[in-house]
Amino acid sequence: MMQLQLALDGTLDASVMILEQTRPYIDIAEVGTPLILREGVRALRAIHSRFPDLPLLADFKIMDAGEEEAAIAFEAGASLVTVMGLAQDATLSGVVTAAAHYGREVMVDLMQHPDPAQRIHECMAMGCDYYCVHTAHDVRRIESPVESLRKLRYAMPDAALAVAGGINLDSLQAIISVHPAVIIVGSAITRAADPAAAARAFHNRIREHG
Amino acid sequence: MMQLQLALDGTLDASVMILEQTRPYIDIAEVGTPLILREGVRALRAIHSRFPDLPLLADFKIMDAGEEEAAIAFEAGASLVTVMGLAQDATLSGVVTAAAHYGREVMVDLMQHPDPAQRIHECMAMGCDYYCVHTAHDVRRIESPVESLRKLRYAMPDAALAVAGGINLDSLQAIISVHPAVIIVGSAITRAADPAAAARAFHNRIREHG
Repeated sequence: MMQLQLALDGTLDASVMILEQTRPYIDIAEVGTPLILREGVRALRAIHSRFPDLPLLADFKIMDAGEEEAAIAFEAGASLVTVMGLAQDATLSGVVTAAAHYGREVMVDLMQHPDPAQRIHECMAMGCDYYCVHTAHDVRRIESPVESLRKLRYAMPDAALAVAGGINLDSLQAIISVHPAVIIVGSAITRAADPAAAARAFHNRIREHG
Repeated sequence: MMQLQLALDGTLDASVMILEQTRPYIDIAEVGTPLILREGVRALRAIHSRFPDLPLLADFKIMDAGEEEAAIAFEAGASLVTVMGLAQDATLSGVVTAAAHYGREVMVDLMQHPDPAQRIHECMAMGCDYYCVHTAHDVRRIESPVESLRKLRYAMPDAALAVAGGINLDSLQAIISVHPAVIIVGSAITRAADPAAAARAFHNRIREHG
């Protein structure tokens, strides 16, 4: 079953308002990196206390001090934390250790990794959970994540893939056909004229297809 | 002239206490990634308002959304922000754009980059300011940054290099001999029995040698 993850990058107040409207349609709320940088884990705590049943991903993009930084996210209520596939193995292992300790999960962000399929193999052996094909915000106008996702799915039929990077209702169908575990949507919902209607449209389209 | 940068990774209160003791001996205070994750830019604002003349580095380790994330640091009073050398060129350019806008500086963290000398060339052309040879915390017991620093200095005699990774008074001399622009010290000062005396010892040793 594919899950819909809503990436929140505005202010904390705006993010809580959008979650109030979209909660029925989303499976995971992502506290995005800019929101973490502005507010720290206060943003995780505030959202977790308001929506205690909503799985929360902390987009920490961990590069070092894996166990310590992951613990900061999990202590504040995150169900998942991100670590860069580019980080050292020791860092990834530290994140996995923290996740096991708290009973939470790890998403590996493959952004900029030169050999994502190989890295997924290594990360699966270390005990990571999700592998995110991620087109950087800064190059979104020239690249789409769909082709990379398709290649990875072919190489790794069983990996729990996630996909992020400017996904909208137009590109959704191509993504659904590759069957990622998690589809991450940001501005196509958060900046829609009617975020609830947009989230519902994504939700329904994803549910129709499995 | 070599500068001493103190990396703060404890709580905000502990960091302010340590700065009160060590302020005369340090040139730059670094708000470390775990402290940013815990507190957000509140940590930068609190330290900047208490020590308005102390240059502050925000260790954001930016991987994406360069201009937006760098602006978050600069708005909160940071004089410098870090971006990963592994990030896209577009991300690095965005950080440089924000730094130019605010009249601040950019430190490129070379952690995990496969060809740091080449990356420094590229980053200098983009307008970055400092290049940090960084042994990850998670592999510090098995690697030292001194050898990498020496090789880079040989390849790049004019680059403003910075160096971080478990530096203590024993390893300081070897580092000074390579003449980096910035020497980053953390626990050898923050966890010393007497942080002021430790900071003074680093400061004096660095000043003796230029």
